[in-house]
Amino acid sequence: MIKIAPSILSADFANLQKDIQDVEQGGADYIHIDVMDGHFVPNITIGPLVVEAIRPITTLPLDVHLMIEDPDTYIPAFAKAGADIISVHVEACRHLHRTVQLIKAEGVKAGVVINPATPVESIIPILDDVDLVLLMTVNPGFGGQAFIESVLPKISQVRSLITERGLSVEVEVDGGVNPETAARCVEAGADVLVAGSAIYQQADRKKAISSIRGN
Amino acid sequence: MIKIAPSILSADFANLQKDIQDVEQGGADYIHIDVMDGHFVPNITIGPLVVEAIRPITTLPLDVHLMIEDPDTYIPAFAKAGADIISVHVEACRHLHRTVQLIKAEGVKAGVVINPATPVESIIPILDDVDLVLLMTVNPGFGGQAFIESVLPKISQVRSLITERGLSVEVEVDGGVNPETAARCVEAGADVLVAGSAIYQQADRKKAISSIRGN
Amino acid sequence: MIKIAPSILSADFANLQKDIQDVEQGGADYIHIDVMDGHFVPNITIGPLVVEAIRPITTLPLDVHLMIEDPDTYIPAFAKAGADIISVHVEACRHLHRTVQLIKAEGVKAGVVINPATPVESIIPILDDVDLVLLMTVNPGFGGQAFIESVLPKISQVRSLITERGLSVEVEVDGGVNPETAARCVEAGADVLVAGSAIYQQADRKKAISSIRGN
Amino acid sequence: MIKIAPSILSADFANLQKDIQDVEQGGADYIHIDVMDGHFVPNITIGPLVVEAIRPITTLPLDVHLMIEDPDTYIPAFAKAGADIISVHVEACRHLHRTVQLIKAEGVKAGVVINPATPVESIIPILDDVDLVLLMTVNPGFGGQAFIESVLPKISQVRSLITERGLSVEVEVDGGVNPETAARCVEAGADVLVAGSAIYQQADRKKAISSIRGN
Amino acid sequence: MIKIAPSILSADFANLQKDIQDVEQGGADYIHIDVMDGHFVPNITIGPLVVEAIRPITTLPLDVHLMIEDPDTYIPAFAKAGADIISVHVEACRHLHRTVQLIKAEGVKAGVVINPATPVESIIPILDDVDLVLLMTVNPGFGGQAFIESVLPKISQVRSLITERGLSVEVEVDGGVNPETAARCVEAGADVLVAGSAIYQQADRKKAISSIRGN
Amino acid sequence: MIKIAPSILSADFANLQKDIQDVEQGGADYIHIDVMDGHFVPNITIGPLVVEAIRPITTLPLDVHLMIEDPDTYIPAFAKAGADIISVHVEACRHLHRTVQLIKAEGVKAGVVINPATPVESIIPILDDVDLVLLMTVNPGFGGQAFIESVLPKISQVRSLITERGLSVEVEVDGGVNPETAARCVEAGADVLVAGSAIYQQADRKKAISSIRGN
Repeated sequence: MIKIAPSILSADFANLQKDIQDVEQGGADYIHIDVMDGHFVPNITIGPLVVEAIRPITTLPLDVHLMIEDPDTYIPAFAKAGADIISVHVEACRHLHRTVQLIKAEGVKAGVVINPATPVESIIPILDDVDLVLLMTVNPGFGGQAFIESVLPKISQVRSLITERGLSVEVEVDGGVNPETAARCVEAGADVLVAGSAIYQQADRKKAISSIRGN
Repeated sequence: MIKIAPSILSADFANLQKDIQDVEQGGADYIHIDVMDGHFVPNITIGPLVVEAIRPITTLPLDVHLMIEDPDTYIPAFAKAGADIISVHVEACRHLHRTVQLIKAEGVKAGVVINPATPVESIIPILDDVDLVLLMTVNPGFGGQAFIESVLPKISQVRSLITERGLSVEVEVDGGVNPETAARCVEAGADVLVAGSAIYQQADRKKAISSIRGN
Repeated sequence: MIKIAPSILSADFANLQKDIQDVEQGGADYIHIDVMDGHFVPNITIGPLVVEAIRPITTLPLDVHLMIEDPDTYIPAFAKAGADIISVHVEACRHLHRTVQLIKAEGVKAGVVINPATPVESIIPILDDVDLVLLMTVNPGFGGQAFIESVLPKISQVRSLITERGLSVEVEVDGGVNPETAARCVEAGADVLVAGSAIYQQADRKKAISSIRGN
Repeated sequence: MIKIAPSILSADFANLQKDIQDVEQGGADYIHIDVMDGHFVPNITIGPLVVEAIRPITTLPLDVHLMIEDPDTYIPAFAKAGADIISVHVEACRHLHRTVQLIKAEGVKAGVVINPATPVESIIPILDDVDLVLLMTVNPGFGGQAFIESVLPKISQVRSLITERGLSVEVEVDGGVNPETAARCVEAGADVLVAGSAIYQQADRKKAISSIRGN
Repeated sequence: MIKIAPSILSADFANLQKDIQDVEQGGADYIHIDVMDGHFVPNITIGPLVVEAIRPITTLPLDVHLMIEDPDTYIPAFAKAGADIISVHVEACRHLHRTVQLIKAEGVKAGVVINPATPVESIIPILDDVDLVLLMTVNPGFGGQAFIESVLPKISQVRSLITERGLSVEVEVDGGVNPETAARCVEAGADVLVAGSAIYQQADRKKAISSIRGN
Repeated sequence: MIKIAPSILSADFANLQKDIQDVEQGGADYIHIDVMDGHFVPNITIGPLVVEAIRPITTLPLDVHLMIEDPDTYIPAFAKAGADIISVHVEACRHLHRTVQLIKAEGVKAGVVINPATPVESIIPILDDVDLVLLMTVNPGFGGQAFIESVLPKISQVRSLITERGLSVEVEVDGGVNPETAARCVEAGADVLVAGSAIYQQADRKKAISSIRGN
């Protein structure tokens, strides 16, 4: 079944416990946490202290998406704070293999992320080592942006590579996901969908989540 | 009267509304917001979205302390998010006069911050242009550190300069502040005290605030 | 017909109006403006103020080639100064899709540039979004360098991709272009040729332009 | 007599020869050339090629003001292009003594520049080694800004140090200079005045220069 | 015959002459010198002065592997110090073609290196210009790491490209090489093997070298 | 008595054990180790592995002078490798107090270094926390440079501050030290002298050391 990962970017930062427990009860599978440092992307969001505060209030896996430079420096802090999955951008990693091993050495699942204009070729050598590939369908930095259609063939391309090699790697999509675009992502091969405003800005989060999942 | 600015670094990030309203009711004067980008300091905390979420839940001035590189880039975002005071580190600003004017052009009060080992001489040319001088009594980056005694003479030195020039600039102190160290800071010339664990980690925040204020 | 874009790098910077109007009368199609910041490339050339000064003296499109780090910061300034096309290097853009959208949002045509050793694969995901692909046939930084032969197959490769997808993207070549190398670029699929010394250092610019165009 | 250095920032970049020869005939003493790299300051202006183009068209000393990071890298290029004076910002130089020696080793006069909020103390150890101290009376980056009054005491402070030590170092002021502010700078101890719009944007440059000089 | 290049990283830095002459007598073909700057990789090792000290004590080619940012800055110093081969990381070079030409202009052989997670595609445009391709089979930074198996297909891929194009480019492998992994690298197409602890930490270096060479 | 610290920069890097034991027998007090990363200074020298190799071959304190950016990252490695004193440049440290505490937390003595053009004021707030102040009398980066006279008054200024405060901080001088300049440094207040070529390039190191010491 398709997994849904509500993006914290659209939650109420003054009352995270309430919002996170609401999506957990609404059927969410992961809590997607968007970490931005104001250098890799043009926004600063939240860091390890917020992850640490969220850890005890939910049983869902914390899916931490690092949109930061030099992620190696902060991987231990996020692992210690309670991350279950840590994903890093190929555009931010010169020693991507080392970074992925660092994550795994912390006992955390490792993901690799590519921006809309980054070719799938750039992650082929690391594919066997990761638990998740995250394809950005907007340019990272802000919530509420429109879905970039031209990423759909890249989703299919990643899915094919995974199938060919017999790997059990999740394919996650992040950006502009709503019930309509969700269906197209799933059709292309995605199995984890990040959604922000399409969930947190809806009165009935359970219904919103079901709707994105395609039920 | 001495102003008290509880540092958000020690609040419960899963329930900021509750904690902030609690210190407001406890007599706090400012909400001190510690913004870290993982580059100027070795920690990532929170950014404009969190400030924006806090703005409607308190009437207290939001006292935003930027521990980031290239603060000019983010000053408009923090102003728009609802900051009342924005303070920048002299160690992070090559064009400090421009940065201070940028803050004021946003209709926000401007502060300048110096680290424990930075001499007071470095802020003398900007003193007439700011509303607040913040002296770090720990190295910025983390809550719960011990007060650095050797900063006390710098507090006196800044206070003297302000008095000599007849300015109305506030002198704020941040780091390791508790009832005992608070008294020494006030004696040296401070009039705004940032305190984190000494407030948020106390059951009775009102009493904690009073105690730091010296009542 | 093949378009010719004289590179300002070889013009007389003390009398740009005279030189630019001369190449305009000589049949040039674009004015190619080489912007270097001393960081992305080892030279500093000119910026928005020079573009602004050139804008009123010619009716030709200003084809602005940004050889700078963090181009997002300066795209609005170059657009406002009068650029008609703004091209950015894939090697300088971690969020290439965002950068291209920024250019287009300014109402300007967008180009993407690759260095001699950068594979064509790196621009495939952005190809549908751009108006122009610029292939460097020298390493950017200085005028008067020798043409790098091994880029010719990359010109053909880009042209094929454009044809296959039915796009109307221009293929521009920059570096070491003279009548002899121009013919080979055109044969490989180029339709815009940047030339510097081969035009500006000739007494008869009209003749020089015709000769490069292959007439 | 007070020297006047028209800033190229306000000249017509499409016709530099005409404008520069006009101020030379109008009595200018130096041609002040503002080099910006888009990194040290938020603007990109011109580099060595433009200096090289200006060199043969005037007999005045070229007074090159580097507003760039890592100036050591470009000092040889500006010297070779024809600079007579090269000034560097103390805020951009970690090894200021080396940088000043590099300039002098090229056979060029060396200047050191401080921003409005930078204390005079920061240049005291290098004072004996330079030919010129440039005090910014605006934040560097753009022409047409307003004069910052609070720099006047720093001009006096630098002049006193020079007199005390019996040095022959010129004191230059840059930013917001017009006939009224010029008089105050001279009174404080300046002997070289940079002026941009107050000269180039006047129909009669000779009269404008005289007026700034206080005749 | 397979060439063996003992990595200086495992030699005794207090007695390099003794260790280097020992491996030379033991049959080594190259002296592999690992240069790290603490920025491109998380370690600082040695620089030009050490290369210069080694030059007169051996007749073997010095195979200098630059694990540094901005290699262009230091290529002349390493060439002058006596390097015979200089290799640069594709991950550190935005203008890879220029960097390779710089090396060759110094009269030194040029190599290009790729990290374990970097695709072979990234070096295809430069393949015709280099003398050596170095494939990392560990993440660069430290000696004594375990061989990364998943690089073996990349060795074959590079060898095939070289054969197809009829080039005489050496294929070098660095990281975790011992007699067992060496055999697999050679089978995949490598012809130069870097080995550190497998040579220098053996009492009989001659035997160790033979054993890695597969004799 | 004046301490002498031979700078490893002038030793024979192919036979460090021999040269270091030679200066130890010649009466040296410290082994001065110049660490350069090619970023803070324009040279790369040696790192932790070389310190580790030197540690067992001498009983003298290893006086490690870090000429690197971001020294915090490498302080633990140098401490573990066997450093007895670690000195950092004020020009490289934005959080100088933290850096000094990091060194001391490793159980190592802490020094602070200032370049020739850096004012003594910049180290006043940290003076009570350090064991050593190192004043550069050349610009760091290379051996064999000429002594910069104008640093002498800074030596006196530092010595006075130490005496006034009753501290037991050593005053070390580095650059261009020979018997003649040594005497002047000692007269000004220095008590540790770094010397490179004046020791290692002399046949009789014992005599050279005595001569610098002024015996």
